[in-house]
Amino acid sequence: MNFKVTILGCGSALPAKGMHHAGQVVNVHEQFYLVDCGEGTQSRMMKYGISPHKIRAVFLTHLHGDHIYGIFPLISTLGLLGKKTPLKIFAPHPFGELLAAVASFIDSQLPFEIQYAPIDTTSTDVIYENKVLQVSAVPLRHSKPAAGFLFREKTPALNVRKETIGQYGLGIAQIVAAKNGRDITLADGRTVPNRELTYLPYSPRSYAYISDTAYSGKVAKLVEGVDLLYHEATFSAEEKMLARSTGHSTAADAAKAALNSGARELLIGHFSARYKDPALLLEQARAIFPATQIAQEGHTYGIPLTPGG
Amino acid sequence: MNFKVTILGCGSALPAKGMHHAGQVVNVHEQFYLVDCGEGTQSRMMKYGISPHKIRAVFLTHLHGDHIYGIFPLISTLGLLGKKTPLKIFAPHPFGELLAAVASFIDSQLPFEIQYAPIDTTSTDVIYENKVLQVSAVPLRHSKPAAGFLFREKTPALNVRKETIGQYGLGIAQIVAAKNGRDITLADGRTVPNRELTYLPYSPRSYAYISDTAYSGKVAKLVEGVDLLYHEATFSAEEKMLARSTGHSTAADAAKAALNSGARELLIGHFSARYKDPALLLEQARAIFPATQIAQEGHTYGIPLTPGG
Repeated sequence: MNFKVTILGCGSALPAKGMHHAGQVVNVHEQFYLVDCGEGTQSRMMKYGISPHKIRAVFLTHLHGDHIYGIFPLISTLGLLGKKTPLKIFAPHPFGELLAAVASFIDSQLPFEIQYAPIDTTSTDVIYENKVLQVSAVPLRHSKPAAGFLFREKTPALNVRKETIGQYGLGIAQIVAAKNGRDITLADGRTVPNRELTYLPYSPRSYAYISDTAYSGKVAKLVEGVDLLYHEATFSAEEKMLARSTGHSTAADAAKAALNSGARELLIGHFSARYKDPALLLEQARAIFPATQIAQEGHTYGIPLTPGG
Repeated sequence: MNFKVTILGCGSALPAKGMHHAGQVVNVHEQFYLVDCGEGTQSRMMKYGISPHKIRAVFLTHLHGDHIYGIFPLISTLGLLGKKTPLKIFAPHPFGELLAAVASFIDSQLPFEIQYAPIDTTSTDVIYENKVLQVSAVPLRHSKPAAGFLFREKTPALNVRKETIGQYGLGIAQIVAAKNGRDITLADGRTVPNRELTYLPYSPRSYAYISDTAYSGKVAKLVEGVDLLYHEATFSAEEKMLARSTGHSTAADAAKAALNSGARELLIGHFSARYKDPALLLEQARAIFPATQIAQEGHTYGIPLTPGG
């Protein structure tokens, strides 16, 4: 039962050697989601062995080129590969109009449907949901309307404690009721609380993608208790004013967001091309939030299962 | 006095490992020109040490994504790098409208001007010219209006044959006249033909970029005598029908174009992703035109100087 993210690009707007434009693939129970899609995203998916066919939905944070210029060639490729099933794309307005404009000039007919849903970047709506996952928008503070994304695994079905079930001699109907979370009343009138009969096989996990944004206390609140927080850290503390004026974060801002949200782990990325080595950014973040890692292109960061109790 | 081309991408529409979308940099006397600009072109320019600042003009053959999707992020990068001088872009209609549409949705203000000039894909006009170079359009046979490009070095200034000049005891005015191509009349009435007094330091060189197109006898005629011909060879002979129906060439078509144009050397590229190794295409081309090479990404192919006589 995987819950992990593969980094395709950890650079910011100005490309640099070994740091590409934004892009990640989130894998939740072998369902794949693409988050942001800068130039060359499809090449790096190929490089890291992720077939574009696997992508169930695409989530784009905002309409800056370094987060979306890879989506047009990816759509072309999916067309050439003969994709038949619809492709869902979530992005702020007016992405749909941009897509239509580009398609009108360039693309021949695609063999699949694009289901575009605009994101309200001022709301914390659930924008995507299926049996195991729920994705919500997280309003960001950037120079363009932008939303981050919170991926939350749904609470798994309860498992029964076989020994206890046997001990009380429960029948099928009672076991089903217990699995549905009910307390059980025995023939002698005693009530057995549900938690004595069942347990969660694991705690639901969560991942938040927060880029691009200036530090926001609201964001920290919205991703409270997240297991893994990816937060942009475009600049070092020395460039604090530049970060503010461009709607970006310093490494310290990212760490503060992790601290204030009670995140378990922090992954920093979206580094400015001025940092040949992001070690300085890591150091500044770790001074505030020790459980910080550098997002490295091609690396996959898993969120391990923990007992649900 | 360089005249050479660096291959940035030699794949076709469907990307494959190690074969990227179309893109080349032509260097004529240290003036750099970008020809086609598929996704990731700027990354490969960076990889091969070619600064985007060096590009004087961009030539785009046609409005298919694999030939143009890299231009939008390249323009963004040039803006971030603070480019001030105008960027010339030559491309078929309606590229200007596409550029304007994308800019209206995404880009903030650029610090430089884009000078877009539409190419008439039915004409063989000279579309660009400066002191050392002339670029003409070459109408192609593709599924979209498309033009190839013929780069021709201009005839260099004549050099004087110092010994002969001394022998006839010519004065400054006569030497200038000889350098301008005139025959010289001596004091005793004799006329010295210009070719006895001067020589061309080298023969003007030429390069043709022909992609995407089905075989065309007209194209071969238009690039007659070209030193280096880059011709697309998307398919092998076995896929001749597919080549015809999609407006592409087989390796044999490319070789036929080289043969019929009297090209000195042929470079084939734009390979379909179905060929893991283009050796088969090379073999089929060489059977018709032995002086054929595979275009390899990252390689630079120079056209050597030959004496002008």
